Amino acid sequence: MLEDMGRVKKRVDGLILDELLPKSHTVPAIDLLYTMMRDYPARPGKGMRPYLCVTSCEAFGGKEDNCLLTAAAIELFQNWILIHDDIEDGSEMRRGSPALHKKYDWVLALNTGDALHARMWESLLRNRAALGESRTFDIMAEFARMIDETTEGQQMELRWVVDNDWGMSEADYYLMCTKKTSWYTVISPMRLGGFVAGAPTSSVDSLVEPGKKLGVGFQIHDDVLNLSAGSKYGKETADDLLEGKRTLILIKLLSAADPQDKARIVEIFSMSRVARRPFMGEILDLIHKYDALGYAAARSTELVNDALAMMKNVCWTGNEGAARRIEEIARFAVERDW
Amino acid sequence: MLEDMGRVKKRVDGLILDELLPKSHTVPAIDLLYTMMRDYPARPGKGMRPYLCVTSCEAFGGKEDNCLLTAAAIELFQNWILIHDDIEDGSEMRRGSPALHKKYDWVLALNTGDALHARMWESLLRNRAALGESRTFDIMAEFARMIDETTEGQQMELRWVVDNDWGMSEADYYLMCTKKTSWYTVISPMRLGGFVAGAPTSSVDSLVEPGKKLGVGFQIHDDVLNLSAGSKYGKETADDLLEGKRTLILIKLLSAADPQDKARIVEIFSMSRVARRPFMGEILDLIHKYDALGYAAARSTELVNDALAMMKNVCWTGNEGAARRIEEIARFAVERDW
Repeated sequence: MLEDMGRVKKRVDGLILDELLPKSHTVPAIDLLYTMMRDYPARPGKGMRPYLCVTSCEAFGGKEDNCLLTAAAIELFQNWILIHDDIEDGSEMRRGSPALHKKYDWVLALNTGDALHARMWESLLRNRAALGESRTFDIMAEFARMIDETTEGQQMELRWVVDNDWGMSEADYYLMCTKKTSWYTVISPMRLGGFVAGAPTSSVDSLVEPGKKLGVGFQIHDDVLNLSAGSKYGKETADDLLEGKRTLILIKLLSAADPQDKARIVEIFSMSRVARRPFMGEILDLIHKYDALGYAAARSTELVNDALAMMKNVCWTGNEGAARRIEEIARFAVERDW
Repeated sequence: MLEDMGRVKKRVDGLILDELLPKSHTVPAIDLLYTMMRDYPARPGKGMRPYLCVTSCEAFGGKEDNCLLTAAAIELFQNWILIHDDIEDGSEMRRGSPALHKKYDWVLALNTGDALHARMWESLLRNRAALGESRTFDIMAEFARMIDETTEGQQMELRWVVDNDWGMSEADYYLMCTKKTSWYTVISPMRLGGFVAGAPTSSVDSLVEPGKKLGVGFQIHDDVLNLSAGSKYGKETADDLLEGKRTLILIKLLSAADPQDKARIVEIFSMSRVARRPFMGEILDLIHKYDALGYAAARSTELVNDALAMMKNVCWTGNEGAARRIEEIARFAVERDW
């Protein structure tokens, strides 16, 4: 499965870098814009989302070749929104290198995100030739929905940080995470594969609920990795903590901690990022004391198991091997150590 | 003409605020996102771009009703890109009130721009019902081109500021301004009106060159107003100067100034925005000494006259009154004092 995922990733990357994104311009500032647009797409990545899209397409009887533009547009989506997310979150690193706004002036990075966003829609318009107008419209409507959901989730998360709010419940977290992660990571990639294949609306709609759980499970696993991973992981280790990111781990920690520990945790996260840096070890110790990592890991596995059980009811109409591969991708999402 | 422009603006605003943008949400953070998305669209504006679009549509024999969604999407484009521009430029005010990132936390404003961007595409997808698939594709492709041009122009301008570069020529300025202003202000609004009306490609393409000149003329007039306007103008008076915006006025000033004055100007603009604030009067005096405002105003009029001469060759196939109204809009663009 991993090998096949790598193969699809390579095809999608080739399409993005060779055909969808502009290469050079005689005006230096515009040439720099193009260089910056190509920066995140050229960085290493697992390519799980485009693979899920292509695999879902095959599971509904569609062809990989017809799905590549849409899979590439999913990658373009992730790249432009990550540029903006990294600015919003003040992230230092992305996929093993400095975040775009750390490598270049941040105002140029913001503008680059917008330029890349437009290229995503341009790429989707190209579907018209191979898929026809009706399917292309379905695909574009799904992208609009996906961005609506993602920006709503992002707004929820940003506001917690802006307001120094630590009162969110697990239910608040699941809603935020469904919107911010599940839609663009799982639900839309699978649904888009269905639209490319011309699957019936009822089948495509049946992917939403299991996709929500799968996406949240994936995100929790990602957050657990961020606090436990070594060099394999592209982001600065534990930078989630430094950013004050509201993860299930921290939410569990806050609800499980005794009043004294809880007060200390909130005190540390009320400091500026620079000021709180020396206390990250203390937070990690508390995370271990209350086994918040273990709790989160267990929830992640549980969510994926629930999702897989629900997916048994999805009426795949195509390649049976592909339908099984979707389960493998789901398992991989919560078992990977990178 | 102004009355008619106000009438169209009202229709477009109604469409945006009543139908295209979401109104409320039970989750407070998402409700805030919606409030923020509706903020710039609800502020007063001339509505010149949607009016140009609707008028061009009629001049090509199309109907205003069929053009409203596209005209509204032009307004949505302007609103999301202004949110991001205001962040990038560090602008204080927009249309008479604090810029969105001054009214709310700037990271929330950045995310709001992205959310509004997606709603723009969603609005365009709705054209399918009344215009059919083929025209809707033409319209969306034009929007993609418009954003490509605008972000390239923005990158040129931002880089001058980031690099503290004052070596640009008038030709550099015209290229930047064509990309950053002409496309979304004139060229695309007129072309989009043509696409809605189903005008032939050759006619729609003949709008590009005059539109370039008209847009630059419009922008120069806007910059002249910024330095001379009173309370009628929505932005902080002379805030262009404070932002170090590269206008034709400043470029002319630098090329006309004697070495001593030139060195002083560059010295002042090399200061931080806060540090340069007390010296804006000195810059204004130099602008008057070298009559840079007069030069810019004359160039603006010249460009619009050139554009109008070129537009005589456009083959309007519809309402003659509408074709004449386009000339009136062009005159208005360089004669208005607000």
